[in-house]
Amino acid sequence: MTTRGQRPDATGAFTGLSAFPLTPLRDDTVDEAAFVGLVERLVAAGPDSITALGSTGSYAYLGREERARVARLAVEQADGVPVFVGVGDLRTSHVLAHVDNAEAAGAAGILLAPMTYQPLTDSDVFELFRTVTEYTELPVIVYDNPGTTHFTFTTDLYARIAELPGIASIKIPGVPTDPVAARARVAGIRAAVGEHVTIGVSGDAVAAAGLNADCDAWYSVIGGTLPSPALTITRAAQEGRGADATAESDRLAPLWDLFAAFGGSLRVVAAIAEHLGLAPRECLPLPVRGLGDPQRAAIAGVVDELGLA
Amino acid sequence: MTTRGQRPDATGAFTGLSAFPLTPLRDDTVDEAAFVGLVERLVAAGPDSITALGSTGSYAYLGREERARVARLAVEQADGVPVFVGVGDLRTSHVLAHVDNAEAAGAAGILLAPMTYQPLTDSDVFELFRTVTEYTELPVIVYDNPGTTHFTFTTDLYARIAELPGIASIKIPGVPTDPVAARARVAGIRAAVGEHVTIGVSGDAVAAAGLNADCDAWYSVIGGTLPSPALTITRAAQEGRGADATAESDRLAPLWDLFAAFGGSLRVVAAIAEHLGLAPRECLPLPVRGLGDPQRAAIAGVVDELGLA
Repeated sequence: MTTRGQRPDATGAFTGLSAFPLTPLRDDTVDEAAFVGLVERLVAAGPDSITALGSTGSYAYLGREERARVARLAVEQADGVPVFVGVGDLRTSHVLAHVDNAEAAGAAGILLAPMTYQPLTDSDVFELFRTVTEYTELPVIVYDNPGTTHFTFTTDLYARIAELPGIASIKIPGVPTDPVAARARVAGIRAAVGEHVTIGVSGDAVAAAGLNADCDAWYSVIGGTLPSPALTITRAAQEGRGADATAESDRLAPLWDLFAAFGGSLRVVAAIAEHLGLAPRECLPLPVRGLGDPQRAAIAGVVDELGLA
Repeated sequence: MTTRGQRPDATGAFTGLSAFPLTPLRDDTVDEAAFVGLVERLVAAGPDSITALGSTGSYAYLGREERARVARLAVEQADGVPVFVGVGDLRTSHVLAHVDNAEAAGAAGILLAPMTYQPLTDSDVFELFRTVTEYTELPVIVYDNPGTTHFTFTTDLYARIAELPGIASIKIPGVPTDPVAARARVAGIRAAVGEHVTIGVSGDAVAAAGLNADCDAWYSVIGGTLPSPALTITRAAQEGRGADATAESDRLAPLWDLFAAFGGSLRVVAAIAEHLGLAPRECLPLPVRGLGDPQRAAIAGVVDELGLA
């Protein structure tokens, strides 16, 4: 991970650890106390930014007013830590309404995934980003998350979108586990998008690999609930101690194994938050149900074994 | 296509041609006059039912009030033709709100697709259908549309859901083109779900194949904009003239080819409606953009060549 020049109107906020808190629900209503508690916990740990209403924050499931309220709470509680706000929606005009609310909340940037119901073309997605970047002065993180959006970005489309004004960062879905291949992948994206756009890795299991392969940021699921180990990995990579980043990631392998075994990171992180008393039981929006008791027991065992409590 | 016993509280409405009208937008607002015009056109043609707010009707993109208004308009204009209303949404509580509005509108049934952002498990989807069928007395059509929902039903899950009270029909994504394979597929589903649930084919290009393979209904995109040829196919199959159904479907092959070439049925049908003056230009919800002029010219040529205007 190399220190790089930022776009003039950016602040370096689009580097380092961006922590993605859950938006816990209780009886189908946002549990504001639990959300505030999660954000306070993050602020105390010291991430470089907080991304509210990412996929981990269930943005796609929440209504406009709920999202506006969560954005405001996040900024209010962030104590100066930059807050990015997810604004994705299926319809462009609804995205713009969320942008209005993110601006009103005092967001430092917005995260935009091309959600799909009908499959979208590259032109559709480019025009979506063009419309949003023309609409707002807020910096935009391009959110490439094919596991949820079912839209696949090409590097060429990254490059076209990166030329739009206000594009600050690209959240890529991951990197190859092989270090040489990872470095080549990140270098290829950087050559395409230019130095003014940061590249952030997601997919927590490959975060250390991504940071060691010259990604500028980690958009982190686990960082939103367990910020300490995420910061250990991030700071090690930032300080050139790549082996230490890898060692901490390797130590967390039982956690990554749970993500793989139990259908992805979201339900596991929700179970961890519930186990630690940070969120009420069944905090995800239905129809997304929480894990069963045997899985929860396995998760609690790993949390204890790794000293994450 | 065989006449079958219906569930006691159903009416046979879940058989034959269900026509799916577009919900045209103009300047990002539902064009009510255009929608009413489409429904009036359908009623004049005489389908067995109308499904408002299907995928073709852009339900996933519309707000709650828009959907309530469209449902009311559809029932008001349907002149007694049963109207089914799409109630899918990402969050279960939002689905239930749409169910309330469908009931208030006077819908004869609801169409429920398991929309996803986070991938759903079979248990999640079963519980969604259980919750909805416990909530409403309206008959429910299980909407299996993996191209938009990215959820894949198994036949076993069909069977489990079919045991819930109120499940009236299953809208399957298609059948194999080979007649023997198609018949085996439909027979397999019917054996699993029982005689009280009708099976409706979708995927217009294989509709004749589905009806000839003993599907009870055709949930039809093209039927919502060009009801005449859809009725020709449906009535032929219903009357045991399978070869006539196949011949009409074969005659429409240039239309099916456009669906395949231009990214699916929705944008093609929107372009047809726009070409025929039934919808304003760019009637789909952004970011879903209309087709370009060369594609529109090709579509107009096929519409003219096939005498569909």
